[in-house]
Amino acid sequence: MKKIRIIEAPKHIGETVTIGGWISNKRSSGKIAFLQLRDGSAYFQGVVVKSEVEESVFDLAKSLTQESSVWVTGIIQEDTRSKFGYEIHVKEIEIIGESKDYPITPKEHGTEFLMDHRHLWLRSSKQHAIMQIRNEVIRATYEFFNKEGFLKVDPPILTGNAAEDTTELFHTQYFEYDAFLSQSGQLYMEAAAMALGKVFSFGPTFRAEKSKTRRHLIEFWMIEPEMAFMNQEESLEIQEKYVAYLVQSVLNNCDMALEILERDKELLKKYTTLPYPRISYDEAVELLKENDFEIEWGEDFGSPQETFIANQYDQPVFILNYPKAIKPFYMKPHPDRDDVVLCADMIAPEGYGEIIGGSQREDDYEALQTQLEKHGLDIKDYDWYLDLRKYGSVPHSGFGLGLERTITWLSGTEHIREAIPFPRLLNRIYP
Amino acid sequence: MKKIRIIEAPKHIGETVTIGGWISNKRSSGKIAFLQLRDGSAYFQGVVVKSEVEESVFDLAKSLTQESSVWVTGIIQEDTRSKFGYEIHVKEIEIIGESKDYPITPKEHGTEFLMDHRHLWLRSSKQHAIMQIRNEVIRATYEFFNKEGFLKVDPPILTGNAAEDTTELFHTQYFEYDAFLSQSGQLYMEAAAMALGKVFSFGPTFRAEKSKTRRHLIEFWMIEPEMAFMNQEESLEIQEKYVAYLVQSVLNNCDMALEILERDKELLKKYTTLPYPRISYDEAVELLKENDFEIEWGEDFGSPQETFIANQYDQPVFILNYPKAIKPFYMKPHPDRDDVVLCADMIAPEGYGEIIGGSQREDDYEALQTQLEKHGLDIKDYDWYLDLRKYGSVPHSGFGLGLERTITWLSGTEHIREAIPFPRLLNRIYP
Ligand SMILES: [Mg+2]
Ligand SMILES: [Mg+2]
Repeated sequence: MKKIRIIEAPKHIGETVTIGGWISNKRSSGKIAFLQLRDGSAYFQGVVVKSEVEESVFDLAKSLTQESSVWVTGIIQEDTRSKFGYEIHVKEIEIIGESKDYPITPKEHGTEFLMDHRHLWLRSSKQHAIMQIRNEVIRATYEFFNKEGFLKVDPPILTGNAAEDTTELFHTQYFEYDAFLSQSGQLYMEAAAMALGKVFSFGPTFRAEKSKTRRHLIEFWMIEPEMAFMNQEESLEIQEKYVAYLVQSVLNNCDMALEILERDKELLKKYTTLPYPRISYDEAVELLKENDFEIEWGEDFGSPQETFIANQYDQPVFILNYPKAIKPFYMKPHPDRDDVVLCADMIAPEGYGEIIGGSQREDDYEALQTQLEKHGLDIKDYDWYLDLRKYGSVPHSGFGLGLERTITWLSGTEHIREAIPFPRLLNRIYP
Repeated sequence: MKKIRIIEAPKHIGETVTIGGWISNKRSSGKIAFLQLRDGSAYFQGVVVKSEVEESVFDLAKSLTQESSVWVTGIIQEDTRSKFGYEIHVKEIEIIGESKDYPITPKEHGTEFLMDHRHLWLRSSKQHAIMQIRNEVIRATYEFFNKEGFLKVDPPILTGNAAEDTTELFHTQYFEYDAFLSQSGQLYMEAAAMALGKVFSFGPTFRAEKSKTRRHLIEFWMIEPEMAFMNQEESLEIQEKYVAYLVQSVLNNCDMALEILERDKELLKKYTTLPYPRISYDEAVELLKENDFEIEWGEDFGSPQETFIANQYDQPVFILNYPKAIKPFYMKPHPDRDDVVLCADMIAPEGYGEIIGGSQREDDYEALQTQLEKHGLDIKDYDWYLDLRKYGSVPHSGFGLGLERTITWLSGTEHIREAIPFPRLLNRIYP
């Protein structure tokens, strides 16, 4: 018998096929049973009519428990009442693995309970939908940067020094050396850009930060493009083009997932309009002051302030040129003003916060050395990084996009912990 | 002036354009200077004719040092003598960053010296070519698994337990917990397959192994597909289709890189022919014995033995059904024989060794529990993993492909350390 996946049903109308799947739900009367089937590709209904099958098949259908696995054989038919549009008229059922007392029932469960059962929770339709959106964002990222002529470069995870001056690093013993888990591959990506021109990384990063908010993960994935011969203005154009591409790809390819998540597609469509609005840090501070926020020039924005700024616009917004004092050592100062740097954060709409941070990089050897010293960093640790300014330095810019924050936003999910298959949180390293 | 990249030259013949790049080499006479330019996208020649440019431009051209960065403006022309086929007739040169005493000269350097300067060594044409092949293998991997209906799933890097019973793990303190860096995401991928059907991971893995061979890295990238409702036979078909797809993609899209690496394309073409040959472990042992290797049934193959087996064939070869005793706890025993498991390694041709290891997974709760105990593993650590056999267990199979081993093979590189941008080796965590 032909084995197909549920997602392939539209190509097999009227054919008898076999599908391997799990029972996600079931209802039955004396004459008919409706099996809600899932196989990871999609969900659809299996209809078992008592008068059309052997008695043992109908009895088995009625006895199936939640998450039991089965081979189901039957005929694919159109089903105009369901969103998916197809169903299977079941002729035979073979049980593969029973499932007794499945812990996640259709009733409400607490988050800690669900997190303890994350390996099973992923089977739920909402989690499945978020993982489909995650997959699409990843797929579209590779497609976008490949089209734009970038090469994928993987910076090391284990490093001897840190990209930013912070103590929030995981330590490990690397044979006789001390090593840390990378919280950004940027410095390495700068070296790669000098060799390969336009590059992007896409890998896990780690922050041993004791914060417990709905926007923070300890282990998260970042996309970090770096571009030689590009200034900050050109980088901003790539950034907005990339984010709009992600939104459009999700709209094009995740229709069922967006339905399940009840995500407003009209809202998402607005995020595909370019260019994105821009506001300077200076203007943003003024705007906040006018609206009774307590902030002084020189301070960083908190979450409520970012949300207030974002709410002024229908698209993601760039905040440009932050004070030098609150940004990392490697950012290039504004040519006309020494107190701000050539940088921008992109703030997502609807209160989802910062999804991109980027800047033009300091490309002058002396200036970079001075900055390293001012930040109390050891020049020796940055020997190879300084080399990039010694041997044919060029203007270059880059940025980092947080994968899970972007997924949280696109899927309209409340908490970032649902945007990654197995979240690592302050008090969680299980499962 | 229109800014283009070298790779775009064919679309701009006869046009005046500006290119940002580095001087990789140079030769000049009294009347003409030839600048070898690179910008990360490709290499080509800039021709500066003394009688056609301002005197200052010609003087600057003659003074340019290796790896100095420049904006070059001129007219794109065909150049039938070069492999790339195009060159630029230079009108103006603007120097961006000087480069004095660039450490890597066209002469021979020792490997340790080059590794110490990896951030610069990446600019060399051979390293550039390997990185292009790496990019293509990554790109083709996403394309293949997306087409085949797999979802990308990222298993966690920080974990509380290990996939295989070994002490070769990096440890870190995860707040109040002990954590280890993942050396395989497989167990998590099995959970994901039960939720999403067909999944693949692609991320860094870590082995704190004190081996120093030309096939080992401490930090390396793995692709780990896992498929619900698939047996080992179906998995083998996916594996060979995937590897042939990688080879074909490199042949299609890395022509210049293969030229630079002097890689035999006719040889690579043979690796696109399917199916790949198969030999059982039993047969392989017999073959080795007949050829005077000292090996007994039950022992694992070493590198010379794998190479001997591979040399019997013109394609990668599968070695099937290894002894249970030398394979991990999660592999499913052969249905007819309890002493071997349903597994296979794929051995690359030309002595490049094992590039894939895969198996059908034990899907029976009791059998898995017994195996865990036999391997001296703590059942409690595998609680969630056992759940997968408790709630709708299904036949499932998966495999892992080592990215850098595959790149080493496809690029015909001697040592795996050149297959990754910033290698982590036994005595190296710099740069
Ligand atoms: Mg910020
Ligand atoms: Mg082996």
